[in-house]
Amino acid sequence: MSVRNEALVDHACLIVHGPDQQGVVAAITDLVSRHQGNIVSLDQYSSNPEGGDFFQRVVFHRDDLTAVMPEIESDLEKTLAPYGMQWQLSDQSAPKRMAILASTSDHCLLELLWRHRRGELPVTIPMVISNHTNVAEDVRTFGVPFFHVHSQGPDKTAAEAKILELLAGNVDFVVLARYMQIISEDFLDKVGVPVINIHHSFLPAFIGAAPYRKAAERGVKLIGATSHYVTKDLDEGPIIKQDVARVDHSMTAADLQARGAYVERAVLSRAVQWHAEDRVIRHGNHTIVF
Amino acid sequence: MSVRNEALVDHACLIVHGPDQQGVVAAITDLVSRHQGNIVSLDQYSSNPEGGDFFQRVVFHRDDLTAVMPEIESDLEKTLAPYGMQWQLSDQSAPKRMAILASTSDHCLLELLWRHRRGELPVTIPMVISNHTNVAEDVRTFGVPFFHVHSQGPDKTAAEAKILELLAGNVDFVVLARYMQIISEDFLDKVGVPVINIHHSFLPAFIGAAPYRKAAERGVKLIGATSHYVTKDLDEGPIIKQDVARVDHSMTAADLQARGAYVERAVLSRAVQWHAEDRVIRHGNHTIVF
Amino acid sequence: MSVRNEALVDHACLIVHGPDQQGVVAAITDLVSRHQGNIVSLDQYSSNPEGGDFFQRVVFHRDDLTAVMPEIESDLEKTLAPYGMQWQLSDQSAPKRMAILASTSDHCLLELLWRHRRGELPVTIPMVISNHTNVAEDVRTFGVPFFHVHSQGPDKTAAEAKILELLAGNVDFVVLARYMQIISEDFLDKVGVPVINIHHSFLPAFIGAAPYRKAAERGVKLIGATSHYVTKDLDEGPIIKQDVARVDHSMTAADLQARGAYVERAVLSRAVQWHAEDRVIRHGNHTIVF
Amino acid sequence: MSVRNEALVDHACLIVHGPDQQGVVAAITDLVSRHQGNIVSLDQYSSNPEGGDFFQRVVFHRDDLTAVMPEIESDLEKTLAPYGMQWQLSDQSAPKRMAILASTSDHCLLELLWRHRRGELPVTIPMVISNHTNVAEDVRTFGVPFFHVHSQGPDKTAAEAKILELLAGNVDFVVLARYMQIISEDFLDKVGVPVINIHHSFLPAFIGAAPYRKAAERGVKLIGATSHYVTKDLDEGPIIKQDVARVDHSMTAADLQARGAYVERAVLSRAVQWHAEDRVIRHGNHTIVF
Repeated sequence: MSVRNEALVDHACLIVHGPDQQGVVAAITDLVSRHQGNIVSLDQYSSNPEGGDFFQRVVFHRDDLTAVMPEIESDLEKTLAPYGMQWQLSDQSAPKRMAILASTSDHCLLELLWRHRRGELPVTIPMVISNHTNVAEDVRTFGVPFFHVHSQGPDKTAAEAKILELLAGNVDFVVLARYMQIISEDFLDKVGVPVINIHHSFLPAFIGAAPYRKAAERGVKLIGATSHYVTKDLDEGPIIKQDVARVDHSMTAADLQARGAYVERAVLSRAVQWHAEDRVIRHGNHTIVF
Repeated sequence: MSVRNEALVDHACLIVHGPDQQGVVAAITDLVSRHQGNIVSLDQYSSNPEGGDFFQRVVFHRDDLTAVMPEIESDLEKTLAPYGMQWQLSDQSAPKRMAILASTSDHCLLELLWRHRRGELPVTIPMVISNHTNVAEDVRTFGVPFFHVHSQGPDKTAAEAKILELLAGNVDFVVLARYMQIISEDFLDKVGVPVINIHHSFLPAFIGAAPYRKAAERGVKLIGATSHYVTKDLDEGPIIKQDVARVDHSMTAADLQARGAYVERAVLSRAVQWHAEDRVIRHGNHTIVF
Repeated sequence: MSVRNEALVDHACLIVHGPDQQGVVAAITDLVSRHQGNIVSLDQYSSNPEGGDFFQRVVFHRDDLTAVMPEIESDLEKTLAPYGMQWQLSDQSAPKRMAILASTSDHCLLELLWRHRRGELPVTIPMVISNHTNVAEDVRTFGVPFFHVHSQGPDKTAAEAKILELLAGNVDFVVLARYMQIISEDFLDKVGVPVINIHHSFLPAFIGAAPYRKAAERGVKLIGATSHYVTKDLDEGPIIKQDVARVDHSMTAADLQARGAYVERAVLSRAVQWHAEDRVIRHGNHTIVF
Repeated sequence: MSVRNEALVDHACLIVHGPDQQGVVAAITDLVSRHQGNIVSLDQYSSNPEGGDFFQRVVFHRDDLTAVMPEIESDLEKTLAPYGMQWQLSDQSAPKRMAILASTSDHCLLELLWRHRRGELPVTIPMVISNHTNVAEDVRTFGVPFFHVHSQGPDKTAAEAKILELLAGNVDFVVLARYMQIISEDFLDKVGVPVINIHHSFLPAFIGAAPYRKAAERGVKLIGATSHYVTKDLDEGPIIKQDVARVDHSMTAADLQARGAYVERAVLSRAVQWHAEDRVIRHGNHTIVF
């Protein structure tokens, strides 16, 4: 990996989850210790200390981490197998590669690009793909490649095939930054990496299309946005982050949409940051966020 | 009326709504002026200056208000009829009479009683009715009459009849403070006064029973509460006030319920206060809140 | 004025304030009515109905507004003089001209430029002035002229003179978007238009320099930002808008600064929008925000 | 201890802090493991992995905890001494004993009594002490002893002596629930247990008396409340919890006080809960809150 986050060199992030049982924390921290790791942060959650699920995220510092990663991984395998635990070890200095899919709206897209430029999102952005061209120039100003993939009519097969071709092998996760096309099940099967979406309502309220119009019709006093992993069930994937904004009777659906844009960009950015920092563990239809 | 809010003596609240048109604001403020009223506050909203609906709330001070109320009302009728406006004039020093219906939970009920004792709710409370007896002593400590109306089994006819008998002629509005019985359409037809409910979710998410359990199952990151007028469609009435609280993966349905109780009592109290102060205008399935 | 906000053509905004007294609302609304104006929105506030100060903002629609503005103004003068009221009438379709002064930080600056491009700030932006050059290219991407005014050493006289020369006659208000230079009293005397600042703390906490460092040292659990009009007393001007964000023990001063940047840009943007829409009335060291 | 929290029987809470160093987490979790403890929750924070301060809170379950506490404590001493760590082990089923000092205001006091009755505060309340008598009946309704300690004139020596006499040996911490008397340094020296206060402003804004009046004079757009440990420097103690509420130009100092009361009771209750659950570690003038 050519791009490295210098501040995080020699920092490893270990995610462990599985059936909770006595001694597992000691086993993990002991392993870190015997490999000369110094624990920088540690979060854990157990859904039930007796018979529940156990989740842990440990960040540790270890000089010459790269050299000893294989050794640590082999020890993790040996140590955690008896506990039936799943684990994942990553070098925190290696940023994840994030593709962004967008349409005409620029608020979520530009927020991500700008936060990335400020050094607040530990990712690289190999590409932005849009079914429109209006954001091309803005994207390229940030030094990020832009690809236009035309998508018209009900049959998205060709467009999706082209997108998959662009993504293949190049990205670690995909963000739908107000991408206004339904993603097919086939696409999800083939893409092979997590896909994060921003839905412009406080799910499960106003599932589906036109949530701001529905919110105006219902006369709600708060609107919201929800960032979630995309699954085959539309708007039903595991929720990462939600937030709301206060609205009142004087606001039209267009006003709600304008106000909501600020909630959307904040919620999506935070969800992307947490995912990029390995803070989100998916568990069934839930997320554990450390 | 024997109870009066001394600070609001000689204060009138005028609510006007109807089709928006040029000159109506001048007509109203002119009327107030020619009756020697001094406008204390004025709020208005027009859904569309051309052909929309117009809503206004004016509070004005007038010495010897009681003596001239009939005269002002007669002038209002004459002045506003040509505009096709509906209006309502009330003496702000005369508190509305509020009945509270409760079940075993005390958090919303006690909050209302305590805020009333602090002088923050401009109402009188002629009675609390519950289908349980556990809150009786607390209610009476506040100097408020408590009535137990037993309600068991699917047939609520007898219980509702008894409640209607207690309410008849004695109250100006009814608050369901976590009253855990479905209100029948027949009850709503007969009660003849507005009924305000607190629903323990951020409507329209989690309509119906057990919203906290459903919220835990869905893995939401915020929970909410909604206060609304009760209509024949369950949980579909005009929303007065909503709010939310942040939750996380570690919280069980019971934890959500405990956290949510604080949102519920705040949301319901504020909705009740606004209603009592004539700040809420119902318009179809919406509310205008001034 | 060559630039016009088409949606607001024929909309006038009238601000009135002075000693509260009976009949003044009727006098104003009557005046609007006799000039064939249709009131779109009306907000008012009285610090005390008896002997207090009265503030009103009325937006009304009138066909061919431009043609009749002089006539309305002359009537306002005649009508309001007896009440001792100050007033200001403006054509809402004529956007105010806003200059932005910035330094190296781009978060407030870019947010303003971007919201303007989205059509959410009813202003024109004739220039951005900075004592650094790093933001020049970004600013020009938005089609806005950028001027670099070097400012080094304790004597700011030359720099301020050059800035005043650029501003003279060209702007209706000035925004300090994290401009890291102390503004002299002499500059304020000469600039002749309102100046809006964003202070990176919840005033009056942490007045002066380095508020995030002070906040970290004090161990606060919330940080904030404050947008205010600039007066000769540093950080003591009338507050327009404030907001906060939650922080915790694990955050360093640098973390607070990064988190705070998001509060700053939101608070400043909202204050600028309200000022541009004539929603803010200064009254001594206070603001009335409609 | 006669009162026990049954849900927390056999749960221990271990707090450790000291100079951060490699291996300390493993040493602690290993110790818990070799005493057959199952870790229920674990939080930690290091101010700097290299040469900083380390803080940890571990809750573990162990059958027959009471029987083996001395053994675990002795092992902790032996294990942690080489690391220079301070530690504290407590039986979570043994609630802390909390005294409340109040004056005429009842909002914070009643909120604590009511949350305690709901089972949300893991404490016992052996006494409420007030320099007024108006809340006596309410307090006793909750089954809590009430003591009136008269305090008049500038010399508080006699009153403080009487309060110290009542507290001596009977309480584990003291809460000032809007107790409107200055606590002397001598009292703090003698009381020997932590004292938690609620200050009715967003500290460090509006230190000292009459914060709501000062807030109204300054024209702030948010008001706040701060709960902190009491130290000899007035309003300068370590902050546990802060929150704010939105206010506007129309609100008088009395309105701010009424609105602020709701922030105060929420902030103080949460701070008390966290203290009671051993979630707050004091470190110089800061708190770490897990």
